[in-house]
Amino acid sequence: MKKMVFIVKDYNYEKFMMATILGTTGAAMEIEMHFFCTFWGLFILKKKSKPKVRNIPWRGIPMPTNWMATRVFRKRMKKYGIEDPWAIIKDAVEDGKMKLYPCTTTMELMGIKVGDLRDICEDPIGAAGFLEICEDADAVISL
Amino acid sequence: MKKMVFIVKDYNYEKFMMATILGTTGAAMEIEMHFFCTFWGLFILKKKSKPKVRNIPWRGIPMPTNWMATRVFRKRMKKYGIEDPWAIIKDAVEDGKMKLYPCTTTMELMGIKVGDLRDICEDPIGAAGFLEICEDADAVISL
Amino acid sequence: MKKMVFIVKDYNYEKFMMATILGTTGAAMEIEMHFFCTFWGLFILKKKSKPKVRNIPWRGIPMPTNWMATRVFRKRMKKYGIEDPWAIIKDAVEDGKMKLYPCTTTMELMGIKVGDLRDICEDPIGAAGFLEICEDADAVISL
Repeated sequence: MKKMVFIVKDYNYEKFMMATILGTTGAAMEIEMHFFCTFWGLFILKKKSKPKVRNIPWRGIPMPTNWMATRVFRKRMKKYGIEDPWAIIKDAVEDGKMKLYPCTTTMELMGIKVGDLRDICEDPIGAAGFLEICEDADAVISL
Repeated sequence: MKKMVFIVKDYNYEKFMMATILGTTGAAMEIEMHFFCTFWGLFILKKKSKPKVRNIPWRGIPMPTNWMATRVFRKRMKKYGIEDPWAIIKDAVEDGKMKLYPCTTTMELMGIKVGDLRDICEDPIGAAGFLEICEDADAVISL
Repeated sequence: MKKMVFIVKDYNYEKFMMATILGTTGAAMEIEMHFFCTFWGLFILKKKSKPKVRNIPWRGIPMPTNWMATRVFRKRMKKYGIEDPWAIIKDAVEDGKMKLYPCTTTMELMGIKVGDLRDICEDPIGAAGFLEICEDADAVISL
């Protein structure tokens, strides 16, 4: 396993955590980890993005709202050693092993500019650019 | 990259657009693009299917309903050059580079007949048929 | 196709059925089928788990609730020959061709113990363990 490509298409805490943990773990294992952020997933790359837990599979538990569930998870993640996801992502990006690609089509459709996105992103790419990145990937996964 | 296989399992505008853009872009790049439409994703293949935006990740924005958001996206897609998704899909299918497979199990479970589906579909296949298509694929992605 | 790896990240009937049908069909075709159950997907592995249908793509149909839709699907699955999903999964697991991995990170975050999970699970693994399993896989798919 030398190169993995991920599609991130949703804006929620669950997907962001999966991208954070898989991306930084893979990078530490010297695997190239590429993330193509498209549709709602592009919003994760916006400055000040704060995705909330979305897919709680039950009701009537002591976590009544997505907002509260998100707080609970953030606290537990802190205990688990992930205080600031963007700090560890930044390290992996600066080490050159994790790459975050904004989707040009989504940017045009949603009116999002490069300046709205975090500094650590690569240049935006479209569907053709994404398919080119997949070319020599060992796995392509849509989170 | 010569052959990609996709699982389409949801019925919403987002997944339909991803299938449309990836499918037709890949086909234009001479990649075989296979789409296995199962569970709710089968409904995309029905005649007169009109999937709506489903996963809006926020509330209180000027797009109060899924229905309105779908209209907004359709208009922007038009501007972007995709006036009729099914027209460009049909071109890619007729060129032989894009293939749409209905899932037999879903058809039986949901009481859907071949006659209910668009003409450009391949013959329905089940899980075993899907796994056979994956055999020589360079990537298998569940959208 | 000798080995496929799946990420199961949601707790709902749809994903459970996909895992059941793909897993047991693949195992019968002598493909190693590995399932990494993370985030809400871990709950599928709990004893007495009963995932409900979640992603009904429309409203105003004669299946008003997720609970009713689940009953309808269970009945139809029975007719289709899948009376007890866990029975056929157990067969595939005992044949050594299907493997279910609980995610350690999720277990710690959610306070779930090995004793809470079904007996047929493998030892829990984390992100690094998952990436190692992917190493020689022919396909990695996030359901």
